[in-house]
Amino acid sequence: MAGARPKVVIVGGGFGGLWAAKALAKSKVDVVVIDRQNHHVFQPLLYQVATAVLSPGEIAQPIRRILHNYKNIEVVLGEVVEVDPANKQAVLGDGVRVSFDYLIIAAGARHSYFGHDDWETSAPGLKTLDDAVEIRRRVLLAFEMAERDAYLQNRKRQLNFVVVGGGPTGVEMAGAIADIARQALAKDFKAIRTADAHVVLYEGSDRILGTFAPELSDSAKQQLEDIGVEVQLKSFVSEIEPGRVKVGEDWIDCDVVVWATGVAASSLGKKLGVETDKAGRVFVEPDLSIKTNKDIFVIGDMASIKQADGTPVPGVSPAAMQMGEQTAKNILAELDGRPRKPFEYNDKGTMATIGRSKAIAEIGKFKFRGFIAWLMWLFLHVFFLIGFKNRLAVMTDWFWAYLTRERSARLITGKAEHMHDAIEFLQAARSRDTRSKSKTTV
Amino acid sequence: MAGARPKVVIVGGGFGGLWAAKALAKSKVDVVVIDRQNHHVFQPLLYQVATAVLSPGEIAQPIRRILHNYKNIEVVLGEVVEVDPANKQAVLGDGVRVSFDYLIIAAGARHSYFGHDDWETSAPGLKTLDDAVEIRRRVLLAFEMAERDAYLQNRKRQLNFVVVGGGPTGVEMAGAIADIARQALAKDFKAIRTADAHVVLYEGSDRILGTFAPELSDSAKQQLEDIGVEVQLKSFVSEIEPGRVKVGEDWIDCDVVVWATGVAASSLGKKLGVETDKAGRVFVEPDLSIKTNKDIFVIGDMASIKQADGTPVPGVSPAAMQMGEQTAKNILAELDGRPRKPFEYNDKGTMATIGRSKAIAEIGKFKFRGFIAWLMWLFLHVFFLIGFKNRLAVMTDWFWAYLTRERSARLITGKAEHMHDAIEFLQAARSRDTRSKSKTTV
Repeated sequence: MAGARPKVVIVGGGFGGLWAAKALAKSKVDVVVIDRQNHHVFQPLLYQVATAVLSPGEIAQPIRRILHNYKNIEVVLGEVVEVDPANKQAVLGDGVRVSFDYLIIAAGARHSYFGHDDWETSAPGLKTLDDAVEIRRRVLLAFEMAERDAYLQNRKRQLNFVVVGGGPTGVEMAGAIADIARQALAKDFKAIRTADAHVVLYEGSDRILGTFAPELSDSAKQQLEDIGVEVQLKSFVSEIEPGRVKVGEDWIDCDVVVWATGVAASSLGKKLGVETDKAGRVFVEPDLSIKTNKDIFVIGDMASIKQADGTPVPGVSPAAMQMGEQTAKNILAELDGRPRKPFEYNDKGTMATIGRSKAIAEIGKFKFRGFIAWLMWLFLHVFFLIGFKNRLAVMTDWFWAYLTRERSARLITGKAEHMHDAIEFLQAARSRDTRSKSKTTV
Repeated sequence: MAGARPKVVIVGGGFGGLWAAKALAKSKVDVVVIDRQNHHVFQPLLYQVATAVLSPGEIAQPIRRILHNYKNIEVVLGEVVEVDPANKQAVLGDGVRVSFDYLIIAAGARHSYFGHDDWETSAPGLKTLDDAVEIRRRVLLAFEMAERDAYLQNRKRQLNFVVVGGGPTGVEMAGAIADIARQALAKDFKAIRTADAHVVLYEGSDRILGTFAPELSDSAKQQLEDIGVEVQLKSFVSEIEPGRVKVGEDWIDCDVVVWATGVAASSLGKKLGVETDKAGRVFVEPDLSIKTNKDIFVIGDMASIKQADGTPVPGVSPAAMQMGEQTAKNILAELDGRPRKPFEYNDKGTMATIGRSKAIAEIGKFKFRGFIAWLMWLFLHVFFLIGFKNRLAVMTDWFWAYLTRERSARLITGKAEHMHDAIEFLQAARSRDTRSKSKTTV
């Protein structure tokens, strides 16, 4: 490096990258955060954008904005596609090389389609703001098309929503769709009863939210069923086509499918030349560096590391934040001639929300369910939302939604072509729906 | 019609259509509002979304939501592509026919590229929420790419923004881009000085905002120049390519072009078989019906009609609202056996905003400029924003932006492919920029 100040390059402005950057702020190193997007997304609330409770702007902030007070931190919009450990450079999509003394890779993970990447068009996942806006568009369009058919053609039909995967995202999505169908949308549609919409959650294992205590899984299932969600356990989705999914041997017709299972870490992990697990997560050393190069760290959802009790550190945002902070501290310690410390995950408890006033939480030995768990969830998430302005707006929106059961973010956006694609897609699904129905009745 | 209640079909949920619907609420007719989008957009504030001051959700509301309290009004998502006057039916894109007793066509207008529709890719207009989000993306990306080049490759270059057309939209856009470059973005970018960005406004005639009094046009030009915008009068853009525009004989390099001139009424007008003007506006009768069918009305930006003094009714939102209301009243009068009244435009004054604390207003003989005009503009627009919730949020955002000169809506969204397209586009523009520069220096 030309300058006297060591340079830390951080790939990704998610929780891991951002917390690493903040811990390096005002220190003796120069920091560059590189992200494909210009904004940090508060992922735990993505499902609220997908169900039109919140607007995209309420759960996202420009990374540049979050870090603008720190003179030693620069933010660059770009995609790191390769790492050149020998020359200590990160390579961007257009070939530009960024030199580093230390590299922190925090590029996150997406959902995995288990080799069926073609399913993504029919069953989008929920990892980015664009994913959320796309799912919102599909959910709202499904209701619009049903209303249109009922009003213009006097053709009533069942609306079906399918969520694949009973982890936190799947449970949140299923609960939130059921919520808006029963509450927020009910008054606005006149030819259909939105509350009649059917939401099914398919989970492969024998309980949902498998990382929680079994009694909380049971409670979550009951809470989902209370708001009308059908929960199907030990059910594997084996095929997906536009407008229907195959579960076991049966094809199930549906208007919208949301994919919420599987983990595929950023492909950058596999390019490092070190061992990864099946999901593409890098097996990291105790200090989160990679085996072949102690100046390259992999953190967050991309890292595979075990806790003292042998269980893996979960892919949740608190873990990513802690890894980011620890890595920053280790770099600064080393520059001061002190040894690095191994990473230890401090589990402060986990919670999952199910719907309005419904949630579960597990904090050490304590277990909470229902309204009290939901309140805990609410305050924790609002508290963590980055930036005072956002916190205020989200609070207002939630409070408003709670009082009036309305939704303020219900816009279907997208280029006209996309809209037409979506309409054709829904029509194709419907006409098959009609065909299969007539087949049954004939 | 089967039922005893007459049926009014309204095409378009803009100001004209919405005001017609509201005036028919709780009356003896059934109303169907058909729109391609599910939301009404408060168009006068679109430029604030395009410059990242407001979020899309703050200036738009689902049409269904706005009208949900009225039992006699149904809202349908769909595109009317044809009208069948003989059978009194509106035909949707998928062939479905909607019968009417009265039809109110309020499908609006877009910008016209004067036969060069291929320019739209390089120079998007600003009529829909998607347009605004696209322009926001380009403006923010231009700054991001400049920062990236300056930081990673030590390559500084001039950022150029071009706005074509000196009407209200063009003036607002030019002023708002200059504003964010000088204020909101300044602190966030470290390798470039965003305030150095150059904004040029090209206007073909000899003054901007030509519908105002000449002294107000002069004031507006001065106010624009005060915030660093270069205003070029009598300047015609004769060609547009990615990254540059031709003005007279000169090619001008630019990072972003915004098209804000020309009017092209919805193509539905031309399909009615009656005479239209060059912009596709339908010459309507004094009661806003079309010559060949007194039960079909054309209102808002699609209608061409003269005031008592011989000047045309301007294509502004108050005119559209008044037309919508008048048409509704005429229909109800006729059903009561009373005669229709001719439409008379009540001009309550016009205003145009130029930037933070800068505007002009003309109300009868009274002329206002600067801060006082801006305050009038601000309160009028907030007042008119539909829905209490939106009013509150926009107020908060503005107040916040005013106090802190920050921007809360600065997200670059869009599918990854679009992002790559945009980056390639900007890079193509830049490399030509470099070529042409080296040509000059050699």
